[in-house]
Amino acid sequence: MTHSIAILGASGYTGAELVRLIATHPNMQIKALGANSKAGQAMADVFPHLRHLDLPDLVTIEEIDFSGIDLCFCALPHATSQAVIRDLPKTMKIVDLSADFRLRDPKVYAKWYGGQHAALECQAEAVYGLTEFYREEIRGARLVAGTGCNAATGQYALRPLIAGKLIDLDEIIIDLKTGVSGAGRSLKENLLHAELSEGAHAYGVGGTHRHLAEFDQEFSAIAGQEVKVQFTPHLLPANRGIIATVYVKGEPDAIHAALAATYADEPFLHVLPFGQTPSTRHIRGSNFCHIGVSGDRIPGRAIVVAALDNLTKGSSGQALQNANLMLGEDETAGLMLAPVFP
Amino acid sequence: MTHSIAILGASGYTGAELVRLIATHPNMQIKALGANSKAGQAMADVFPHLRHLDLPDLVTIEEIDFSGIDLCFCALPHATSQAVIRDLPKTMKIVDLSADFRLRDPKVYAKWYGGQHAALECQAEAVYGLTEFYREEIRGARLVAGTGCNAATGQYALRPLIAGKLIDLDEIIIDLKTGVSGAGRSLKENLLHAELSEGAHAYGVGGTHRHLAEFDQEFSAIAGQEVKVQFTPHLLPANRGIIATVYVKGEPDAIHAALAATYADEPFLHVLPFGQTPSTRHIRGSNFCHIGVSGDRIPGRAIVVAALDNLTKGSSGQALQNANLMLGEDETAGLMLAPVFP
Amino acid sequence: MTHSIAILGASGYTGAELVRLIATHPNMQIKALGANSKAGQAMADVFPHLRHLDLPDLVTIEEIDFSGIDLCFCALPHATSQAVIRDLPKTMKIVDLSADFRLRDPKVYAKWYGGQHAALECQAEAVYGLTEFYREEIRGARLVAGTGCNAATGQYALRPLIAGKLIDLDEIIIDLKTGVSGAGRSLKENLLHAELSEGAHAYGVGGTHRHLAEFDQEFSAIAGQEVKVQFTPHLLPANRGIIATVYVKGEPDAIHAALAATYADEPFLHVLPFGQTPSTRHIRGSNFCHIGVSGDRIPGRAIVVAALDNLTKGSSGQALQNANLMLGEDETAGLMLAPVFP
Amino acid sequence: MTHSIAILGASGYTGAELVRLIATHPNMQIKALGANSKAGQAMADVFPHLRHLDLPDLVTIEEIDFSGIDLCFCALPHATSQAVIRDLPKTMKIVDLSADFRLRDPKVYAKWYGGQHAALECQAEAVYGLTEFYREEIRGARLVAGTGCNAATGQYALRPLIAGKLIDLDEIIIDLKTGVSGAGRSLKENLLHAELSEGAHAYGVGGTHRHLAEFDQEFSAIAGQEVKVQFTPHLLPANRGIIATVYVKGEPDAIHAALAATYADEPFLHVLPFGQTPSTRHIRGSNFCHIGVSGDRIPGRAIVVAALDNLTKGSSGQALQNANLMLGEDETAGLMLAPVFP
Repeated sequence: MTHSIAILGASGYTGAELVRLIATHPNMQIKALGANSKAGQAMADVFPHLRHLDLPDLVTIEEIDFSGIDLCFCALPHATSQAVIRDLPKTMKIVDLSADFRLRDPKVYAKWYGGQHAALECQAEAVYGLTEFYREEIRGARLVAGTGCNAATGQYALRPLIAGKLIDLDEIIIDLKTGVSGAGRSLKENLLHAELSEGAHAYGVGGTHRHLAEFDQEFSAIAGQEVKVQFTPHLLPANRGIIATVYVKGEPDAIHAALAATYADEPFLHVLPFGQTPSTRHIRGSNFCHIGVSGDRIPGRAIVVAALDNLTKGSSGQALQNANLMLGEDETAGLMLAPVFP
Repeated sequence: MTHSIAILGASGYTGAELVRLIATHPNMQIKALGANSKAGQAMADVFPHLRHLDLPDLVTIEEIDFSGIDLCFCALPHATSQAVIRDLPKTMKIVDLSADFRLRDPKVYAKWYGGQHAALECQAEAVYGLTEFYREEIRGARLVAGTGCNAATGQYALRPLIAGKLIDLDEIIIDLKTGVSGAGRSLKENLLHAELSEGAHAYGVGGTHRHLAEFDQEFSAIAGQEVKVQFTPHLLPANRGIIATVYVKGEPDAIHAALAATYADEPFLHVLPFGQTPSTRHIRGSNFCHIGVSGDRIPGRAIVVAALDNLTKGSSGQALQNANLMLGEDETAGLMLAPVFP
Repeated sequence: MTHSIAILGASGYTGAELVRLIATHPNMQIKALGANSKAGQAMADVFPHLRHLDLPDLVTIEEIDFSGIDLCFCALPHATSQAVIRDLPKTMKIVDLSADFRLRDPKVYAKWYGGQHAALECQAEAVYGLTEFYREEIRGARLVAGTGCNAATGQYALRPLIAGKLIDLDEIIIDLKTGVSGAGRSLKENLLHAELSEGAHAYGVGGTHRHLAEFDQEFSAIAGQEVKVQFTPHLLPANRGIIATVYVKGEPDAIHAALAATYADEPFLHVLPFGQTPSTRHIRGSNFCHIGVSGDRIPGRAIVVAALDNLTKGSSGQALQNANLMLGEDETAGLMLAPVFP
Repeated sequence: MTHSIAILGASGYTGAELVRLIATHPNMQIKALGANSKAGQAMADVFPHLRHLDLPDLVTIEEIDFSGIDLCFCALPHATSQAVIRDLPKTMKIVDLSADFRLRDPKVYAKWYGGQHAALECQAEAVYGLTEFYREEIRGARLVAGTGCNAATGQYALRPLIAGKLIDLDEIIIDLKTGVSGAGRSLKENLLHAELSEGAHAYGVGGTHRHLAEFDQEFSAIAGQEVKVQFTPHLLPANRGIIATVYVKGEPDAIHAALAATYADEPFLHVLPFGQTPSTRHIRGSNFCHIGVSGDRIPGRAIVVAALDNLTKGSSGQALQNANLMLGEDETAGLMLAPVFP
């Protein structure tokens, strides 16, 4: 059975990545592509790499007839997303890729994203989209909230350690490096090639990056107590890929064992042999996440390194994985593409 | 029916690319991976991006039992390739990715590659592997010789123009820019990141690049007279992708029409609307080739720009496309992956 | 004697490059930095790499007291530049880096830049700033018009050949590859890192790039007849550097000899031994231009390759070289910095 | 007075960087360039970016007449360096850029570098070359041992904090990202462009990188007790630049004040306003080091970020700065070049 799919926000990178992945999906057909700013254009003109596909033209959201749509991916900017989703048919399944439905507490949302939430009932039913840890809820959900790409990376490294009470909860540092596509196709001076190429810098230093709200929510829930991590993102001169170097206090062997056990049957999470470390170039363009664990020379300390592609496992691939669950499809359909290296 | 596949030279980039593509092929199974220098290692250790696949370990060529192999890809360096293929079972189909069987005239081979050919009978039966122009011969071939990646790009731009007698044969210039993976995984100072990043240079200037032998052979055969083009390759600070800017004398509209007509039914060749130009980033990681035609401000002159991925359409994707034909499979099986952008 | 310098358009890349170069000049002091959009900011906030210098804050052009300024560099966008320069004190020397005063014929300007010129008297006195060929005029000029960066590169390769009647004037092709900083610090989608990294494409194909107006003007003047070249620029995934591959018909040895003789005493132009080719990475960050000549395998044809840094020799370095002449300084002052490699 | 200079190991990146810097030095003349593997070649053939300089050809070390040399830079690989320096004239000043003379305790050297030291008397007189903290000793030294590039970056961030007893000595984490030129011009598969471009990975995880020996030696000496830090280097897809993100426990304001006070009069160290962070692209190609301090959202924790160019301040620039002191020159001579951005 073929599912009819709509994608809102199709002129951004995560929208295009959804199209790329769905193109190899056996049971999905894209029926509508929404993109207000570029409505009226052919997708091949906005994203020439999708030229070989038979796709509908971009239209405004208002022009889309949602009546025959089984599932809608919403790849709009946050704040816009909630206003749009609030008014979509309540019978249609939705996977949102924005930040709008990730935070369960409206006060926390208001604190980090600055403003009242416009669709609180939708938020109330939304399921947090970190597939491996919310699989059953996602299967039954109408609205799934995709996680932040950095938030996903850090959680893959840390959730089993917190759940297993294997690390000191007061001493967690996530030093993360991300490619530039995470910032989207936005016209900002600091995203120009000439500004970024051949360099690196930290941003959001000191605990100001919004993905911290997800870490706080999730880690505190697992631990049953407030957990606050340190988190410093850096911008890499690369288009895709996140690598998170996580410093924890705990026994390295136990940490490795817990990660290996947790992800033993997961199709997309690979825990490397103890002492090996992953690289963003080995997951580029794919839905895989590689995790490595090393012990430090100081006993009782470990370094966990996790790598994934921000556009795939960090957002559009995760969204498709969740959609597969929601539609009763094989969870891996359209997602087993090998990474592109070199 | 599943075909049993062997890949020789599996520790190089074209070998790894074959594995990546075959991983999504419905009817192929990799039974042996040969790589003398890294024999004994797991493929995941040599190419961690293929970690998720269930692959045989690397072995020496001597260790491979070819009796159950339906088709063998040979991704060895030239000269090595002919010596190996000479001794492979004559009943097995072979797609060679090296330069060893591209040139029909042994004297031409000797001139460009410096030395006697060690497998002249094999060469005699080899079919030149530019799929779109040798499709029927390939279908019936036992041994197909993959083209040079630059040679493929230039031919896609030029063959229909020469065949249609649309251009001046004495005035053809191919100014080509290629990513670095075309040089393979070889330890050369000029391939280091620090030597290449953020720069560009020409090499093989003045008609010394070996792919000229293929241009000479093919273009002369089409034209029925000797054709010699000018060809200057440049090295780009990019891993994948070739873009060839071809300067010809002829009517731009007729040139565009000829290309569009020739490739109208081809699954992997896309001729852009007149006046548009392709980009390597829009074919990266895929088997597609994009071609654009523009007229010059000087009447009677045209610029044809062709872009493809040297590792895919320029070598391993082409090889798989040919293997599909040789095995009676759908020509596009395993090859419809969308390009990875950004 | 120290000259007082003003720079208008100091918040762009060519403005910043001027500051970088002047910082090592023994006899220049920057007295004013104009940048309307960022007026009020410290230069170190707009360009942190200049943090170590003691520089005036950015101000609006209206705020600058030009009375004590000996020479003003104008690094504003074209069209803006002419409107500003028209109203500057007529006693002050000016080096303009825009396109506004490069074209001697107002009709040609109107054709390529679309609109009436607003400062025709200034244009009448402007000297074209290709230092090596207009040295004496520049020495006595009040207003010097910096050349286009692509136009400079092509002219260095071709002027001696046209002047020496060594090549066929109807058959000149300039295939040029440029880094992205040539497009300035402008917020355009196609200049984002994610759009450009790891790829390449042609633009302005077919004779539409505005720098052709300079080629036409200069080459026709040298030849004493109309000369029209073919010119295709490409965008490289690199911040700095232009490499022009020029295809001509003529005797390679004579061409090499003419270039070597013309530039024998030039401090910044280096003609490589016959058969060698330059690389952008070997002139990066410097005012040098490297030129190589090779013969083609087809007799009577040659390939000339020229490389320079678009921000230095292609614009700000050229501007400083001209300013040195206008102020009676050593022509090379502040400009002998070695390229930065790797 | 002009000093006669020799450079051993001139065919490597740090050797070439020394030449680039010395080219603008008013009182140094390069008299000999040693490079055994490329002896007999012109420097312009090995490093074409230095083509404009009048330099001696490369020779073997044995061919060099050291009698007239005032100071010799030794940019050889470690282990080689000690064997060469042992036999150089004892009257000549030497700045070594290798790891051979950094560690005062031969047992520590043997542990980290695996083997007996071949020049223990030389080691006994060597002064550790972190200029700002060993200035007086360097002034009087005959042999100065250049620091590791990573070791320099971490020390600039941390020495004043340890000296001022401002941070918890048991809880120091240095997460460092470095460009690839730090690995030198060596033929290693993992340094190829195709292996590194567009990706990032950690290496030497868990306390195995040799620069830890310098951290241990220096931090323990300052603290008067054993100090062991955690240190994880990462490889960036960039040629130059190190950025170290340092996590400490202490009061952010006091930390910022201590760094600002320590470096207030230093020509090359710039402490940014509180809360700002540096970028490698703003120090590229220069001898400057930028340091930023931010407080974390968790009280009592701070993040110190330091950026410098590994080839300049991290090695060859530092070496020249030390040579200036040893020769009685202005410490900044040849070193005030502005960074190259973009």
